[in-house]
Amino acid sequence: MPAAFKDPLTAVPSNVLSASAGASSAGQLFQLLRDGRARTRAELANATGLARSTIATRVDALTAIGLVGPAGEAVSSGGRPPSRFAFAPTARSILAVDVGATHILVGITDLASRVLAESRAAIEISAGPAAVLDLVVEHALALLQEAGRSAKELVGVGIGLPGPVQHSTGKPANPPIMPGWDGFDVPAYVQRALSVNVDVLVDNDVNIMALGERAFFWPEVDSLLFVKVATGIGAGIISGGLLQRGADGSAGDIGHVRVPRGDDKLCRCGNYGCLEAMASGPAIAAALTAEGVPAETGDDVLDLARHGNIQAVHAMRQAGRDVGDVLATCVNLLNPSVIVIGGGLSAAGEYLLAGVREVVYQRSLPLATAGLRIVQSMATDQAGMLGASCMVIDHVLAPASVEALVENA
Amino acid sequence: MPAAFKDPLTAVPSNVLSASAGASSAGQLFQLLRDGRARTRAELANATGLARSTIATRVDALTAIGLVGPAGEAVSSGGRPPSRFAFAPTARSILAVDVGATHILVGITDLASRVLAESRAAIEISAGPAAVLDLVVEHALALLQEAGRSAKELVGVGIGLPGPVQHSTGKPANPPIMPGWDGFDVPAYVQRALSVNVDVLVDNDVNIMALGERAFFWPEVDSLLFVKVATGIGAGIISGGLLQRGADGSAGDIGHVRVPRGDDKLCRCGNYGCLEAMASGPAIAAALTAEGVPAETGDDVLDLARHGNIQAVHAMRQAGRDVGDVLATCVNLLNPSVIVIGGGLSAAGEYLLAGVREVVYQRSLPLATAGLRIVQSMATDQAGMLGASCMVIDHVLAPASVEALVENA
Repeated sequence: MPAAFKDPLTAVPSNVLSASAGASSAGQLFQLLRDGRARTRAELANATGLARSTIATRVDALTAIGLVGPAGEAVSSGGRPPSRFAFAPTARSILAVDVGATHILVGITDLASRVLAESRAAIEISAGPAAVLDLVVEHALALLQEAGRSAKELVGVGIGLPGPVQHSTGKPANPPIMPGWDGFDVPAYVQRALSVNVDVLVDNDVNIMALGERAFFWPEVDSLLFVKVATGIGAGIISGGLLQRGADGSAGDIGHVRVPRGDDKLCRCGNYGCLEAMASGPAIAAALTAEGVPAETGDDVLDLARHGNIQAVHAMRQAGRDVGDVLATCVNLLNPSVIVIGGGLSAAGEYLLAGVREVVYQRSLPLATAGLRIVQSMATDQAGMLGASCMVIDHVLAPASVEALVENA
Repeated sequence: MPAAFKDPLTAVPSNVLSASAGASSAGQLFQLLRDGRARTRAELANATGLARSTIATRVDALTAIGLVGPAGEAVSSGGRPPSRFAFAPTARSILAVDVGATHILVGITDLASRVLAESRAAIEISAGPAAVLDLVVEHALALLQEAGRSAKELVGVGIGLPGPVQHSTGKPANPPIMPGWDGFDVPAYVQRALSVNVDVLVDNDVNIMALGERAFFWPEVDSLLFVKVATGIGAGIISGGLLQRGADGSAGDIGHVRVPRGDDKLCRCGNYGCLEAMASGPAIAAALTAEGVPAETGDDVLDLARHGNIQAVHAMRQAGRDVGDVLATCVNLLNPSVIVIGGGLSAAGEYLLAGVREVVYQRSLPLATAGLRIVQSMATDQAGMLGASCMVIDHVLAPASVEALVENA
């Protein structure tokens, strides 16, 4: 027996304990209804073992906060037919925001992530948090009006930012391309500007893109890697059915992994040969310019490739190979079912993907690639906004959050 | 809205639904008691919202199968003092087995992974499943007798194997060094040989080493990478508090990631430059032999290093650098709090670790290494056996399994 013995009983997953301990709450009862199926009070009593009177009280409380509504009558065996109740995802709203380096996409969704209204604007992330978030709030208020909703109906706000974020506090953590944002209290600022007291959840944009892509297009997949190839390169990891943020929220930062081809290229992180120094939009543009094909941004490269410039096509494919080299390791390590390639450069379609596939299928283990699909993002530029909505839904529909809504109603 | 819209409501985690739906079962009630704290029937009724009579029936059922026992009397406010009940981890047993390429370690533990008896033997994994598992069962029966236990008291069997395993079926999947094991029904064979009808869980040995090391030495850590450096090289990943097996159970297979130094070295997997072809025990031994320092196995290399052979020390450190090169990518990707280096070659202590640390701290991102600890395994050669026990505990103490025990009693 090892000297530093600790009782492994303490390793009981906390959700198991809290789920059973909280079985008597309205928040817990609501979990049963989240599948959208309509149920009578009697069916809810049978499923939970709770008394009919307790069920009635809780259904009333959930109805009062708008999360549950009547859903027709059940067939009666005689007498007045019993009422059915179901999750009512349309009654409340979410503000979902994707902030990129040069754009914002602001949306109002319902609790099933259906978009009620959305709008886009160009920004410079380096303008700082106040300027950018003021514009976000301005768009949000206009969209709420457009959708015929009020800020009071919001259950939460989700925001993706193009850099590392400490998810627990919502504060950016040493974001490299975001001067003025480091440690900025994004949730407090947005709550104040919107004059609402709801939770504001903030995360890295690639993480929420993974959430959005998975919720809408791969709901049955428990193991998915979303890779953004744009001005920066990063990945969002879904494993075991859950987003994996790592110990400090920096999981998925594959942009600064060394690639074989990149040995002498200095990266902005201070190391040599990083993936981002070889395969990001600006890196490809710089390489093309050096070859006598002038380009400044990833969009320029895309334009050239779309017009059949052979050097641009070649550069895109080589960038795909560099990304594939890093993903081959990710595949061996994480054994995902699906790799989704998103971000601006993925819009070039098969050029980038072909390079990725070429190297991943060559370098990864047969067992890990046998069932692996490598595909382009289907949520395209909505992935982040939809994911921000999903992040808020996961949070506000959890037992404790619903219970808090009931108690504060 | 994307064309292939699917309702993200279907993405509700299944454990949330089943936990609340099953709130009325004895298995669910048991989850409350897993923390080891003694409670009265009244306290259990309060915590669950269930009727006193229901609680009494379920406590009796849990007592009958030995998982719960009396734990003294509570202070009374008058009259006969009420009885307290608590989880009784010593009443039932687990058979926990670590099968390596050249050894077995067989243990009998209680439900807190405390070792009641254990024994070791040398094997050759290539002798095939029948020969190896017969020996395991022979040891198991002798150990049960030694510990004064009967096979009937077993609640489950956990086995680690040195190759990929389909965890859902317990069958090895194309294991490279295990002729005769591919697709072999390990659970059925062991159940028959032991004449017991309990669940037999099988997993890759590195996965269960990660479980064992974490449960005993890092119970508060949610993000841990256990790296085995021995005849083979592999990793077990704990992220978000849970073991991550990937889509096909091959997650953590870092032995076949290409390392920069290994460009021309042919690996047994058919690719060039894999980590295992450079840094495994046999690979280091072969490199030393080529330098005129004869060695055959990792143990030979260890002996040489311990006796101060400078070439062996240098080779160990270089192997550490190669491992570090792959782990630098793993750190960027997974952002773990702790990396544990285990397996035979880790017994050389600081030589291997120094090389790992050197490269990881040089190549990984500052945000990901700021709080990172890279340490030697503390469970040493017991990591796998203890992890096999933890794997069984997680399974058999879950609500549905306890419920099945109650119903079959």
